[in-house]
Amino acid sequence: MASVASATNAPSSQEELENGVDGNGSSFKAADTVLQLAQTHKTKPDPNGLVFGKVFTDHMLTIEWSLEEGWEKPHIQPFGNLSIHPACSALHYAVQLFEGLKAYRGPDNKVRLFRPLVNMKRMMKSAHRACLPSFDGAELLECIRKLVEVDQDWVPHSESASLYIRPTFLGTEPTLGVKKPNKALLFVILSPVGSYFSTGVKPVSLWADSKYIRAWRGGTGDCKMGGNYGASIYAQYKAVDYGCQQVLWLYGEDHQITEVGTMNLFLYWINEKGEEELATPPLDGIILPGVTRLSILELARKWGEFKVSERYLTMADLRQALEENRVREMFGSGTACVVSPVGRILYQGENLHIPCEGNFPPLASRLLKELTDIQYGRTPSDWSCIV
Amino acid sequence: MASVASATNAPSSQEELENGVDGNGSSFKAADTVLQLAQTHKTKPDPNGLVFGKVFTDHMLTIEWSLEEGWEKPHIQPFGNLSIHPACSALHYAVQLFEGLKAYRGPDNKVRLFRPLVNMKRMMKSAHRACLPSFDGAELLECIRKLVEVDQDWVPHSESASLYIRPTFLGTEPTLGVKKPNKALLFVILSPVGSYFSTGVKPVSLWADSKYIRAWRGGTGDCKMGGNYGASIYAQYKAVDYGCQQVLWLYGEDHQITEVGTMNLFLYWINEKGEEELATPPLDGIILPGVTRLSILELARKWGEFKVSERYLTMADLRQALEENRVREMFGSGTACVVSPVGRILYQGENLHIPCEGNFPPLASRLLKELTDIQYGRTPSDWSCIV
Repeated sequence: MASVASATNAPSSQEELENGVDGNGSSFKAADTVLQLAQTHKTKPDPNGLVFGKVFTDHMLTIEWSLEEGWEKPHIQPFGNLSIHPACSALHYAVQLFEGLKAYRGPDNKVRLFRPLVNMKRMMKSAHRACLPSFDGAELLECIRKLVEVDQDWVPHSESASLYIRPTFLGTEPTLGVKKPNKALLFVILSPVGSYFSTGVKPVSLWADSKYIRAWRGGTGDCKMGGNYGASIYAQYKAVDYGCQQVLWLYGEDHQITEVGTMNLFLYWINEKGEEELATPPLDGIILPGVTRLSILELARKWGEFKVSERYLTMADLRQALEENRVREMFGSGTACVVSPVGRILYQGENLHIPCEGNFPPLASRLLKELTDIQYGRTPSDWSCIV
Repeated sequence: MASVASATNAPSSQEELENGVDGNGSSFKAADTVLQLAQTHKTKPDPNGLVFGKVFTDHMLTIEWSLEEGWEKPHIQPFGNLSIHPACSALHYAVQLFEGLKAYRGPDNKVRLFRPLVNMKRMMKSAHRACLPSFDGAELLECIRKLVEVDQDWVPHSESASLYIRPTFLGTEPTLGVKKPNKALLFVILSPVGSYFSTGVKPVSLWADSKYIRAWRGGTGDCKMGGNYGASIYAQYKAVDYGCQQVLWLYGEDHQITEVGTMNLFLYWINEKGEEELATPPLDGIILPGVTRLSILELARKWGEFKVSERYLTMADLRQALEENRVREMFGSGTACVVSPVGRILYQGENLHIPCEGNFPPLASRLLKELTDIQYGRTPSDWSCIV
């Protein structure tokens, strides 16, 4: 199997990801990985009945760091509980971050990752913001590749399922002062997954309300830190109470459309100037820089068929465009869901119905196909990274 | 020893704490507590050399909850690591919260808690916001009392030290969907502590900058959730880079003074109308409702010697008042520090020097004395709760 540490699919237009792939300081090395194989193997689930993130594979990767000793050797070991000091800073002060990417089994039976170095870069950006130590992203990717290789039988033999990869990075400082941790734990777990939303391919409904705010300038909304997610669950249940599936997070007095928490958002419309445009909110500090978001922007720009913009969109813009029949599609994007059409937004007591031909409108369908063709290796691409 | 479950020191003016002491649903019962004593005992540290939250006692309290089974029996058991599933929602999505209170040993050798039901109420408010299950605060307080009783020899024989009590509440859902956890763990650990700030009784210096924002309306700044703290560490180190000890978090275009993250803030001044006033920012959703903050407001209102206000204060207000020699004192308040004078604020490149007679000015000194006299039992008070 090919090594990805020397892969040439480094992202090109990644201005939003400030840090390079190489950490500034020392790093663990994938070549030092200690492998301890599980003695027993769990039964693999039916790929058609998978619930997101509920079943885990036989192994996990763990890498410990301390201020005194630096990075320890990576360990691939049997999946099992972590032993955590009860004063651990990840438990008290949410010194924690994660990533999400997937391994896909193609019709050629090869297993591929999709732009994994973009995830590594974002993970290092989150680590910098969380005051966790730096590392070499290419080395972590090679450790992940080894882990997926060990558990390769867990990558579903299905083109509607995949193996979700969850790198997690915790401060494990065992004292209660609020400070930069002197100990940390990076670990990676794997979970075979189907569709993120239990509704499958039906369009999602969103609750847009300005009472709860996901992220703000000067905060951590552009990093994949745990605190962004836990704080969102309360509003998520409000959305369900109002008969919607997810929250459309608004921002500011003008009710800017931001994102869905688990998805970035795209509006495909005829804009105020009469131009055909695919638009998504800009990365101004409150939006998570999604890998699927980036890929959709790059694909659509390569097509050159319509204007592709990172721009502000307000609820007033959307409402007016709906009244004037200028909205063609609206969809979310994310690693978990890939592309997910939006069918309805509940806003200020009014249901805004978004055009959604046959539940999966043309642009969303085309993007889903192009992305999954690359992910599953049906279309060759340098975004694809063979395990 | 007296039971506190029936204590009558329920807070009176607690409009800011929405929920009652009783949980809405079922609760664990302190009477069911299972006690497993440690076989070995750690050496107790010198009370004069204590670092905040670094040493823990011999026992801890743990209480598990699940959607299916409800609350389990409380367990007092030997202090030790927690066994945590690697997909635990507290580690990935910061479904976590904590509290902080102290047990004080008085000259009469009795051990007292200070207004612990206020902490219990705040904890239940945080739990509601974090989508964690409710419980009966009086029952938790009685469990904590039992734990402190078991480890009573750890309450320092010192009137400058105390036993810090850290209740923590985690979502332990072992799956990766962002949702309300179906499993949770409430635990309490104890740590003998001295002064929070290593500078001891010297005035603190604050870095006031609008680039980083601690909390936002519609967020979780008024709850003691972990995400508020982890996100603050980066700016904390910026403050240190600028030669200051802590961050003074600002808010809004007008640079409102909010709090210090580990402390609420008070300004004692002659206000714009020429009135002698003790002022602190109002509980409008971005300020943590501190127990010491509340107690200072109540003490000062009882004195009736000057105006006591919960009001907005901007950096412009402060700067103008300093120019006009209207500032008498500024100090932080918190369980960890009690009262801590502010000596200097670095703002827009300018050092604002706050009057700070003899390092501990008169009002801060008086409040410190009144509060610690109650906490250590030198002054009888219904805020005091004997263990």
